[in-house]
Amino acid sequence: STQSFISSLLLTLKKKLSYDHKKLIHSLKVGVALVLVSLLYLIDPLYEQVGENAMWAIMTVVVLFEYSAGATLGKGLNRGMGTILGGGLGCLAAILAQKLDWVGSSIVIGTTIFIFGAIATYSRLIPNFKKKHDYGAMIFILTFNLVAVSGLQGEKVLLLARERFATIVIGFAICVFTSLLVFPVWSSDELHSSIASKFDNLAQSIEGCLEEYFEPIDEKGNEVTTNSDGYISVLNSKAKDDILRNFARWEPWHGKFGFYHPWDKYLQIGELLRELAATTLSLKGCLRSPRQPSSVPLRLSIKEPCETAATLLACSLRELGDSITQMKKCQAGELMIAKLQSTSFKLNVSVSASKLDTVENGDGLAMSSFVFLLMEM
Amino acid sequence: STQSFISSLLLTLKKKLSYDHKKLIHSLKVGVALVLVSLLYLIDPLYEQVGENAMWAIMTVVVLFEYSAGATLGKGLNRGMGTILGGGLGCLAAILAQKLDWVGSSIVIGTTIFIFGAIATYSRLIPNFKKKHDYGAMIFILTFNLVAVSGLQGEKVLLLARERFATIVIGFAICVFTSLLVFPVWSSDELHSSIASKFDNLAQSIEGCLEEYFEPIDEKGNEVTTNSDGYISVLNSKAKDDILRNFARWEPWHGKFGFYHPWDKYLQIGELLRELAATTLSLKGCLRSPRQPSSVPLRLSIKEPCETAATLLACSLRELGDSITQMKKCQAGELMIAKLQSTSFKLNVSVSASKLDTVENGDGLAMSSFVFLLMEM
Repeated sequence: STQSFISSLLLTLKKKLSYDHKKLIHSLKVGVALVLVSLLYLIDPLYEQVGENAMWAIMTVVVLFEYSAGATLGKGLNRGMGTILGGGLGCLAAILAQKLDWVGSSIVIGTTIFIFGAIATYSRLIPNFKKKHDYGAMIFILTFNLVAVSGLQGEKVLLLARERFATIVIGFAICVFTSLLVFPVWSSDELHSSIASKFDNLAQSIEGCLEEYFEPIDEKGNEVTTNSDGYISVLNSKAKDDILRNFARWEPWHGKFGFYHPWDKYLQIGELLRELAATTLSLKGCLRSPRQPSSVPLRLSIKEPCETAATLLACSLRELGDSITQMKKCQAGELMIAKLQSTSFKLNVSVSASKLDTVENGDGLAMSSFVFLLMEM
Repeated sequence: STQSFISSLLLTLKKKLSYDHKKLIHSLKVGVALVLVSLLYLIDPLYEQVGENAMWAIMTVVVLFEYSAGATLGKGLNRGMGTILGGGLGCLAAILAQKLDWVGSSIVIGTTIFIFGAIATYSRLIPNFKKKHDYGAMIFILTFNLVAVSGLQGEKVLLLARERFATIVIGFAICVFTSLLVFPVWSSDELHSSIASKFDNLAQSIEGCLEEYFEPIDEKGNEVTTNSDGYISVLNSKAKDDILRNFARWEPWHGKFGFYHPWDKYLQIGELLRELAATTLSLKGCLRSPRQPSSVPLRLSIKEPCETAATLLACSLRELGDSITQMKKCQAGELMIAKLQSTSFKLNVSVSASKLDTVENGDGLAMSSFVFLLMEM
């Protein structure tokens, strides 16, 4: 147990280090992108070309550069769409207003700004739209507004819009270049491995629960404290998974993922795993309940079948997790279900004999049905 | 049951309409704020004062105006801090660089941009910092970068920075004015009512579960479908609660909330409610398991104590929810715990008699301990 504890500690440390490593690389990438885009100011011939509009390129880089490639791409495409749409409509409004006198044009511009602003803001509050195009709608409002009012002050609207758009494209290109080509961080990879690691977490939690129950006091007389709290992180993982899925959808074909990788399946698996985590939570609650018999012999009488079931469950979970990591169909699937069912049956028999722990049994059944669901994918 | 279904439907509809109503008002508010800030362009004397920098005011309004007052204030203060810090350091770097020749200043500016950009980006990836100051760090990078490179092109950096800051303040003032003073939407209200409604949801789910179990077929021979799925929304509510808490923290004293309202307590209650929701989930799983006896008489034999327990639980939950809504200490607290314990004991006895459903019992106990925890607050 000490060994397993140390090894799990090492694993956590390694994970943390590799995550910190990724963070560091990301920070350096942002630094490089910023310096690249600043060259527009620093190198005089370039500055003469773009002038004060270089500001927009800097802004684009700062705002767009997100941690993962998918997030950057999604934001960039949204920004592009928002700029084109907002710029186009803004030009129309400005050209329309320039034909009127001062009062008339002010009223026209004010009204269109109000209407488009309100409509775009309302659409930002619709959940399905918000998920994909929140940022795009914001940029639409911004661009529309800026282009429409600039037009009123008699500037050459079309020229201005074109130049700004060109610098935004430069900024976007720098972002994409640094984000996708230099040590890219893919949301899809992260989603994939987070789902796979959930299986491990749950397996560990279930084993930990049982260990705590059957061996509350180890040889040296200390209370056994197992790290069986992995299920809590699984339980609260919905929002993170949703976000990762949204980003992963924007990512192009890379590595082992094809173009139409079924990201929604990941969410379904996540949902099932959260249910299993909830079951684990209440299993733990039941095992810790003061109504459990405190006499060790009574507990030991059901130790063997319970441990078999738990080990089998943990093994199956790990195997499923591995099969997802390697993206292979789980070979031993049919076999596993049969085993789980027979174990659940045995557990049933031995438990009715000792009239204890029906909970655990229900749990076993819930899990076997869960595994069944998984196999159907 | 039909009546209760209709009434719950009406309630949902009313909630939806009032939510849509709020969304509409928010959209109109954004429209008004946009028109107000556009006046900087539309009214010539104002435009002569601020010039092209009016752009920054528009940008501030578009970017800052969020759905709730807390979010707007938090973003605004972050933007202010980021601008001041970034602008100040940027000015320093620019003034320092102006004393060198072209190559030297380019190198100095490039290096500082790289260093500050990387550091600020890294800090944006630290969870605790990100929660409160993500936006501020982004604005810091942006302002620092813009000010530092503008200085290189020989413009009057200090003047430029001052003017831009002034217009940002104008934009912020318009945001705060429209967001806080005209039909404000408070995150704190939303958090408060979302926590209170969770109690209702759970009470309904527990009742629904039992109803489904004891009356699988109603008088007309249809399967009873109760809406007992409220616990799922409770289960997945962590991320939303966290966000609301972060916003609520920025909101000033208003209505019934004081300055140092204990928002973290809300999160703790939410945590407990999620655990209860998980227990409800597995209770439901157990009740639907094919291993439950299908003979109705056997089920009915434990109907009475179970229903008493469930009703009592639901009542206690609703009462707790109400006491939170009204912000009073729950009067009947002690009484409730005593009642719950005695009911749990009765349930215990009757269930050992019929040797069924130990789960439910464990559940009852878990809940009574949960209520106990709540009372201790």
